[in-house]
Amino acid sequence: MTDPSPTPIVQFDALRAFISRALVRVDLPPSDAEVVAQLMAQADLQGSDGHGVIRLPQYVKRIRAGGINTRPNIRVVQERAAMATVDGDNAMGHLVVSRAVDLAIVKAREAGVAWVGTRHSNHAGPASLYARMPVAHNMIGLYFAVGNANHLPAWGGMDMLLSTNPIAAAIPAGVEPEIVLDMATTVAAYGKVKAKAKRGEMMPEGWMIDRQGKPLLDPKRSEEGFLLPIGGYKGYGLALIVGLLAGTLQGAAMGKDVVDFNKDSVTPTNTGQAILVINLEAFGEVSVFKSAVDTLVQDIRASERLPGVDRVWLPGEQSHARRQAYGEHGIPVANALVTELEALAKDLGIEPMKLA
Amino acid sequence: MTDPSPTPIVQFDALRAFISRALVRVDLPPSDAEVVAQLMAQADLQGSDGHGVIRLPQYVKRIRAGGINTRPNIRVVQERAAMATVDGDNAMGHLVVSRAVDLAIVKAREAGVAWVGTRHSNHAGPASLYARMPVAHNMIGLYFAVGNANHLPAWGGMDMLLSTNPIAAAIPAGVEPEIVLDMATTVAAYGKVKAKAKRGEMMPEGWMIDRQGKPLLDPKRSEEGFLLPIGGYKGYGLALIVGLLAGTLQGAAMGKDVVDFNKDSVTPTNTGQAILVINLEAFGEVSVFKSAVDTLVQDIRASERLPGVDRVWLPGEQSHARRQAYGEHGIPVANALVTELEALAKDLGIEPMKLA
Repeated sequence: MTDPSPTPIVQFDALRAFISRALVRVDLPPSDAEVVAQLMAQADLQGSDGHGVIRLPQYVKRIRAGGINTRPNIRVVQERAAMATVDGDNAMGHLVVSRAVDLAIVKAREAGVAWVGTRHSNHAGPASLYARMPVAHNMIGLYFAVGNANHLPAWGGMDMLLSTNPIAAAIPAGVEPEIVLDMATTVAAYGKVKAKAKRGEMMPEGWMIDRQGKPLLDPKRSEEGFLLPIGGYKGYGLALIVGLLAGTLQGAAMGKDVVDFNKDSVTPTNTGQAILVINLEAFGEVSVFKSAVDTLVQDIRASERLPGVDRVWLPGEQSHARRQAYGEHGIPVANALVTELEALAKDLGIEPMKLA
Repeated sequence: MTDPSPTPIVQFDALRAFISRALVRVDLPPSDAEVVAQLMAQADLQGSDGHGVIRLPQYVKRIRAGGINTRPNIRVVQERAAMATVDGDNAMGHLVVSRAVDLAIVKAREAGVAWVGTRHSNHAGPASLYARMPVAHNMIGLYFAVGNANHLPAWGGMDMLLSTNPIAAAIPAGVEPEIVLDMATTVAAYGKVKAKAKRGEMMPEGWMIDRQGKPLLDPKRSEEGFLLPIGGYKGYGLALIVGLLAGTLQGAAMGKDVVDFNKDSVTPTNTGQAILVINLEAFGEVSVFKSAVDTLVQDIRASERLPGVDRVWLPGEQSHARRQAYGEHGIPVANALVTELEALAKDLGIEPMKLA
C-alpha cells in the first residue's frame, strides 16, 4: 500500500520566492518583501513551522485590511552608546526587529554590550531567528518579546493580562553548533493548543486550566480557559518581566493594551521586542570562551542518562539538525497548508509555490 | 498553656552588628565586614532567611579554613563603555557583587545600559538584593548567578553539571512597590529540600527525581537524586543559559568546575555573577514608564480571581511587606538558629546577638 498523500516538499529558495511574490503583490517594496520572506522561510527551515509560511495568509489579511504599514518610516527615536529605541511605524515586524538587531550589533562592537528595543512593531516570527543573528559576529544574543495575544492571567487570577512572552538566547560555540534557547514562558505555546485542536487530540494535563482552576483537556474549549505558566508563579513572574522589558520599557503595548492579532486585523498592535547583544571580544579571548562552551556541550552530551533516554540534547541542537537536513532535502509542508497556500496564490493572482 | 518557645526576635541593627562583629573577628576589615553584614541582614529583613544570618557559620568556617581572601584586591580586569568584568580575588561575594553593581550603575548613567560581571567571587546571598540596587537610581536591574553547588542534570541526563542558577529582576514603579522577581530555575531551591529534611517532612512530587526517573519524596535521600527544572527542558535551558552568562562569559566556574561549597570550605569557588542595569532615563520620560508599571500592577491586583484565591500578588510584594513589618517589629529567628549563633559567638569570643 502506498501512502495516499505523501508530505509535499518545498526547497528553501522556492519557499522564499513564493512568500516574496505574495508580499510584493500586497504592496510591500520588493527589498522589504525579500527580507521578510528570507526570515519566514528560515523559520520553516529550522522547523519553527508555527512561525513560518503558515502565517502568510494572516499577514496578507492584515496588510490588505490596512493593519500593517507597507511604506513605513522605521527610525531610531532614542539613542545612547549602548541603547536605542526603534519606532517601527507599524511595519512588518521582521523589518523592524532586523533593523534593531543590526543596530545592536554595531553598538555592541564599540560599547561591548547593547540593548535595542522596538515599539510600533508587529509579529516577527520565531524569537530564535533574532537571537541567533549576533552569533556570526562572535556575539551573544538575548531576545525578549511581547506575544500578540493574551492567554495568560497572573498567578491566581483570571483576567488575561499577559501573553506567552518568549525569551530566546543564542550563545556562540567553537566546533559545536551554537546553543539556542527559544521558549515561551507558558508550558505550551498557544500555537500548540491550536494544532491539537486541528488534529482532534486532547491536551495533556498541565497545559491549560478552566475558570474553576481545573485541568482543561479539550483544545476546542481553549477559549474557556487559560494557559499555565512554567513553574507556576515563577513563569508568571517571568512572563511579566519579559513583557515589561520588551513592551513597557519601549513604550509598546503590554497588559490590557495588547491587541489580539488573531481576532483583529486592523488595529495597530504596537508590538514591542528587545534584543540584548553581548560582544564576546570585550570580555577576553573569544577562542577561550568558545572552547569553554564546547567543553560544556560535550560534557552534557556525554552525561550518564536516565533509563529510557537515548540522547541528551542541547538547546537548539535539533533545530540545527533540521536546518541541515531541510537545506539538503527540502522542507516538508503539511498537505492542508499547501492547499491553503494554493488558494492564497489564486486569490492574489500570483504563481503558486513550486513544490520539489 | 503558654507557648514553650516563642520565636525569638532580633532588630535589624542588632542583627547587622552581630554579623559585623563575627566577620571582624575572623579578620575582615571593619568596613568590609559592615558591607557584608548590612546585606546579610537585609536578606533576613525581607524574609530571604535561607540567605541571611543562617549562612554566617558556613562563611566563618570557610574564612577560617582559608577559603576566602579577607584582604582582597577587587579590581576591574575588562572594561568598555557598557561593560566590565570585576575580578573578586576570592573575596566575600557580597563585596564583589556590590562593587559590580555600583560600577554598572555609573556606566548605565552614560551609556544607557551596562553589563558588569564577576569572576573569582563567592556566594553573595539572595539575587534580589543586587537586582534591587539600581531601582533607587531609576534603573532596572537584572541579575544572573551560578549557584554554588550542582544539583541539576541536563534534561534526560544524570550528571549534575548545572546548579539552580537564579535570575532576579527589579523594575521601578511609581506609587506601587517595585516589581522584584527572584527565582531559582529549579522547581525548588536546594535550601528548601534541606529545610524539609530538618523538619522531618516529605517533599511534594515534582521537586526531585531519583536515578530511575521516579519521584523522590524523602528529602533525607536527596543525595540519591536530582532537582527538577521548571517547565522540564525549558528550565534546563534557562539554567544553562544563566550559567553561561554569569559564569563562562566572565571566566568563572561553570559545569564540572563548580565547587560544592557545602562540602569543600577550602578550594576557591571562582563564582561568577552578572548584573545588567538599564537606565530608564535613556528610554524616555521616567514618570511615564513608572505610571505604566503602576497601571499594570493595579490591573493585575484587581484581576478576577480563581475560586479559593484571596489575593493576586505581584512578584516582590510579599518581600516588600515583610521588609516593612520586620523593620518595625523586628525579625523572627528560629530557636535552633539562635542556639547555633550563640555557640558561634562563644566559639569566636564575641558578644552574642542581642535579641529584642
